[in-house]
Amino acid sequence: MLKLYYAPGTCALASHIALQDAGAVYSTERVDFKINQQNSPEYLAINPKGRVPSLVTDHGVLTETPAMLAFIAQSFPHAKLAPFDDAFALAQVQSFNSYLCSTVHVAHAHKFRGARWATEEASFADMKRVVPKSVGSSFALIERNMLKGPWVMGETYTICDPYLFTLAGWLEGDSVDLSTLPKVMDHRKRMTERPAVQKVLAEELN
Amino acid sequence: MLKLYYAPGTCALASHIALQDAGAVYSTERVDFKINQQNSPEYLAINPKGRVPSLVTDHGVLTETPAMLAFIAQSFPHAKLAPFDDAFALAQVQSFNSYLCSTVHVAHAHKFRGARWATEEASFADMKRVVPKSVGSSFALIERNMLKGPWVMGETYTICDPYLFTLAGWLEGDSVDLSTLPKVMDHRKRMTERPAVQKVLAEELN
Repeated sequence: MLKLYYAPGTCALASHIALQDAGAVYSTERVDFKINQQNSPEYLAINPKGRVPSLVTDHGVLTETPAMLAFIAQSFPHAKLAPFDDAFALAQVQSFNSYLCSTVHVAHAHKFRGARWATEEASFADMKRVVPKSVGSSFALIERNMLKGPWVMGETYTICDPYLFTLAGWLEGDSVDLSTLPKVMDHRKRMTERPAVQKVLAEELN
Repeated sequence: MLKLYYAPGTCALASHIALQDAGAVYSTERVDFKINQQNSPEYLAINPKGRVPSLVTDHGVLTETPAMLAFIAQSFPHAKLAPFDDAFALAQVQSFNSYLCSTVHVAHAHKFRGARWATEEASFADMKRVVPKSVGSSFALIERNMLKGPWVMGETYTICDPYLFTLAGWLEGDSVDLSTLPKVMDHRKRMTERPAVQKVLAEELN
């Protein structure tokens, strides 16, 4: 039995949608960031990084969204969420998700998480000012070079899609000009039409 | 035929070692950062991100170290560099590599690449001051919770090992106290004893 620890508004949404896409039997537990529950002794025993998401499996706990997404895809092969029988196609999926976690999410994180990398209020303010440009340019690359359409990898829906959808949900908050990203916005709209996405959003926002 | 674009001192070293570990037939081409070759039109046509590494394959170009490492492992199964037949074990490998790219490498990058996330000289100086602590704490987590020993995943050498070795090579430059990381340092030493690593280091440093 799988159990996903998540918090609303975080990248845990990607794995939550993928579990639903996979037809997995799973439970969820919300981690309350308002009371800093992610750094409680109980939660740190599950995930010593003090972050969400965490996925408890029968074999142990997994963290890091790209790894969790690939695990879900490989564990539920009938859902065909990643091309595990084609090394190059799988690497393209992983490359996209790696870019999301190491570049796009990191650029976004400089808005509110500057204390990970600096100490001065002036630095935090500086970082916040750059977020529209840094997030915007990373999404411009996705728009121009990566998103094949209609889904990220083309005609086939994969674990790239819930992850892109999750990070694209932060664009307005990061003051990125949406009019420059028609393919990304079309993708986001198409995602919201999927019953699995609607179900998960309804649960997380409840 | 595979071709790796790399620059000395970068994370491209991980994929270079993995190609050698895999027994792959490959060529390499050095990208000269001193003349900003990574942003030349010729290189941007290969990798529009303007970064290294890039791996040219018969099917197209791959970027992002975790994806390239997994591709190498899956393409050369006899080298047994990743447990593709075990979803949980593979996810552990990917989780480790994802942490290296999205947390450890990112912490390190704040030393010289602050312009990705800020604009002011004072912010860059602030970021540089934090690097020993941010890189140090991420390696402390690896030391305490992740590196099983003797290799990252335990008894079996995987694509996690050249990647950890690569980032651990930056510790002195980032002023991290090595005495707090005995397992990481033992791993680094063991890596340098491997002929494949010696061969690749000799080529990159030549």
